[in-house]
Amino acid sequence: MSYKHENLFSERSKARITRHFWHSASLSGDEKPHPNPIGLVGGMPNHDFFPVNGIRIGISEKPFPKGYHDEVAVTNEPTEEHSFLIPQVSDDPTELDLKTAFQYGNTAGATSLLKFTQDFVKTVWKPGYEDWSTLMTLGGSNGIDKTFDSFIERGDTVLVEEFSFIPILNSLANLGGVPVPLKLDFGPDKTFSFVENLKYLLENWGSLHPDKKKPKLLYTIPTGQNPLGVAQTVEHKKQVLQLADEHDFIILEDEPYAYLNFQKHTETPVFDLTPEQFINSLHGSYISLDKTGRVVRTETFSKVFAPGLRLGFIVAHKSVVESCTKHSDVSSRAPSGVSQIFVNNTIRYLGGIDGWLKWIIKVRNEYLVRKNAFYKALIATEAAKKGYLKPLDPECGMFISSIYDFGKDKNQEATEILKTRFLVNGVGVVFGSGMAVDSEFSKDRSNFLRTAICYTKNTDDLVEAASRISKSILDTAEKLGLAV
Amino acid sequence: MSYKHENLFSERSKARITRHFWHSASLSGDEKPHPNPIGLVGGMPNHDFFPVNGIRIGISEKPFPKGYHDEVAVTNEPTEEHSFLIPQVSDDPTELDLKTAFQYGNTAGATSLLKFTQDFVKTVWKPGYEDWSTLMTLGGSNGIDKTFDSFIERGDTVLVEEFSFIPILNSLANLGGVPVPLKLDFGPDKTFSFVENLKYLLENWGSLHPDKKKPKLLYTIPTGQNPLGVAQTVEHKKQVLQLADEHDFIILEDEPYAYLNFQKHTETPVFDLTPEQFINSLHGSYISLDKTGRVVRTETFSKVFAPGLRLGFIVAHKSVVESCTKHSDVSSRAPSGVSQIFVNNTIRYLGGIDGWLKWIIKVRNEYLVRKNAFYKALIATEAAKKGYLKPLDPECGMFISSIYDFGKDKNQEATEILKTRFLVNGVGVVFGSGMAVDSEFSKDRSNFLRTAICYTKNTDDLVEAASRISKSILDTAEKLGLAV
Repeated sequence: MSYKHENLFSERSKARITRHFWHSASLSGDEKPHPNPIGLVGGMPNHDFFPVNGIRIGISEKPFPKGYHDEVAVTNEPTEEHSFLIPQVSDDPTELDLKTAFQYGNTAGATSLLKFTQDFVKTVWKPGYEDWSTLMTLGGSNGIDKTFDSFIERGDTVLVEEFSFIPILNSLANLGGVPVPLKLDFGPDKTFSFVENLKYLLENWGSLHPDKKKPKLLYTIPTGQNPLGVAQTVEHKKQVLQLADEHDFIILEDEPYAYLNFQKHTETPVFDLTPEQFINSLHGSYISLDKTGRVVRTETFSKVFAPGLRLGFIVAHKSVVESCTKHSDVSSRAPSGVSQIFVNNTIRYLGGIDGWLKWIIKVRNEYLVRKNAFYKALIATEAAKKGYLKPLDPECGMFISSIYDFGKDKNQEATEILKTRFLVNGVGVVFGSGMAVDSEFSKDRSNFLRTAICYTKNTDDLVEAASRISKSILDTAEKLGLAV
Repeated sequence: MSYKHENLFSERSKARITRHFWHSASLSGDEKPHPNPIGLVGGMPNHDFFPVNGIRIGISEKPFPKGYHDEVAVTNEPTEEHSFLIPQVSDDPTELDLKTAFQYGNTAGATSLLKFTQDFVKTVWKPGYEDWSTLMTLGGSNGIDKTFDSFIERGDTVLVEEFSFIPILNSLANLGGVPVPLKLDFGPDKTFSFVENLKYLLENWGSLHPDKKKPKLLYTIPTGQNPLGVAQTVEHKKQVLQLADEHDFIILEDEPYAYLNFQKHTETPVFDLTPEQFINSLHGSYISLDKTGRVVRTETFSKVFAPGLRLGFIVAHKSVVESCTKHSDVSSRAPSGVSQIFVNNTIRYLGGIDGWLKWIIKVRNEYLVRKNAFYKALIATEAAKKGYLKPLDPECGMFISSIYDFGKDKNQEATEILKTRFLVNGVGVVFGSGMAVDSEFSKDRSNFLRTAICYTKNTDDLVEAASRISKSILDTAEKLGLAV
């Protein structure tokens, strides 16, 4: 298996050793290995040493199965109808049993779950070439770390959308990678794009960044961009991929939100969408357009199952998957077998790919209801009507971002006032400036708020939050001496 | 909190950044924060989005609750008497609920489990100073990686017992650390020690290793040394710690086997040992002798609970714990919340520290039974009686190592023959040479086998294995033209 982009691997990745302590032997002549060898090799406890001997897991038919209730201490006994057992030992290869999942496991992930992710990716994302595979990770961010580790050397440049998921910068800094922000064109009346800015940047690299290496990797959140909530079109992706071919860099597409896709806010939730309809409605993936293994896709089970699993996967060329697996060998090791049992066997209980997609459709529609309610509340506020607040209707994800505008010369002062108003009026938000890779570079575009629709118990809270945001904006306008 | 050994931290560790994207604000005058703020900050899904809504976990009263059976597909329904429920939401701070454990969690580990590890360490190991703490890791090896990452720079030297747990060398190589083997004095009639060799090495470093830096860290497995199964005495540890003070290096004590402690093979298993008696019978820890935070102790739940949890912890000075937490922030992130729920709530169900120790005592006695049976079978073999095989009676752990001796000039040839004999006679073992840090350095001491007592279903298999080992040894003697 040859890999066209081997030249981009980091030296550390290429030099990685995996020495083991066991030996192999071969027999000559007509000698045969013993048919029933007794294994005294590894320090693996027999599974009858494990204190846990059986598990029953209760499954909800839909998110918020008991409605939108105030929180109280509650213990659910899994009911016969809506639960399943984890066997201690199973001979069904699609089922993970206690014996396997609680034992030392494959670094790349449990066989059954790896197979599921591969079947799922083949059905939903249809990679554009043959030699791809998957690797289980410890969540989306861990997948990003592993990808960075495979490619990034001290001093290597990574392009990052100017507003992005900031914790990745910590991982990058730890490897000595240098982030360079990529200007984004966005706004309430604009089609999102960065392709022209990317082209300009790459073609004028020497004069724009004379002291930095040409980029080795582009980190992008194509669908449900964090924080902006926008999605790249397929055409946009094709153009970016062409630039990657011309300038020889890896595209790391981070897709935690890909399944929480929306059309415009006029869309009505359809809870009984078929899996096929749902797949056709998705915003697409770089991996489908890739022909050479230039794209690495990172996914997570955090947003559609649960974050505490610390479980996700990478889709990439087999050589990249191998490099990341070697990284796991010297760092995280295999993901938790217990987390893998929950995901693998829940998906099996729900009916495999189709059943899992049906669950995702329910989650996605719940988010669509929230998004619509919150977006409508935001555009109906006084602050919006007076032109101080301009919400961006998100195409995907868990966030609505809203530009606040008190005039170019007043926005910076306004930001500081807003921080105190939000505290007093009781709404927690993230500021655009906090999500800027380089706050100086992005200072003229940082005047927006990111607000998450995922944590409140219901849409009433979101509607109330919109009113508190509006009040905070108007308070600020007043303090700035503007008309309210 | 000052840390006396800050000089030993790696530059990478000191430079680690943890930039977040949220802001803080303070109010002046008599303004107050809103009493009921609506949180729209993080991308945390409300727990009612999680498909799992309840879990019942069945617990064994002892290892091998159904005896030593042949393996068949089996599914255990957790019974009312021997199981517990995981609540969706709990207000008991010692209990982990679904809402917390399935959500994004503290990088250092769940509060209740961290508290348990700290209380447990205080009770069992009694660190010799105040400013220590714990950090949950993704298992023992991951704890070692994090410790290496805190201290080891490219080109730094790490002392490793000449026979050791080889996968740590892969982690070390990934950081550019240089392992140097430390000669061990061991044998069936010898008290295990390396202190004289360590002293000689350190005092003659310049002439013995003119091209290498003086060691920054000693990696040791003090109790149930892997592969030798020996334990360092408290006196030995004191002398090593004194050398560490003189030559300024960190001691990393890796203790996966500490609770599987044995006296000599004449010891009879006592299943109703009290927790206090058990604690007093343990082989001690470097951390108890440490006064300045020079020692890092790594533990794992793999050997006394289950490896698939990928869960362990580090005990060290608070500054080291902080450094390792920052490493988690940019690599593994928090351990699986699902794994933490199993460990935290099982221990709570068993009755906290005392209940957990009682479970450990049962596991340890099961291993003692196995160790005694296997050791007795080994010393009673023809191969042992004829002097070709010399088993070392282990003081701790999962392994028995046995020296094989066909004469100094024949042992290397014998090793190759043995590999084929074990294959034909049906017993899987690890060779000493496979566990040598530097096979050339250790070639005169590599003529031994490591055999694990943990994986077979019962002691009958171990007794049979002893007979197969003996046959393989005698076959080899015959092929070498020696008396059998």
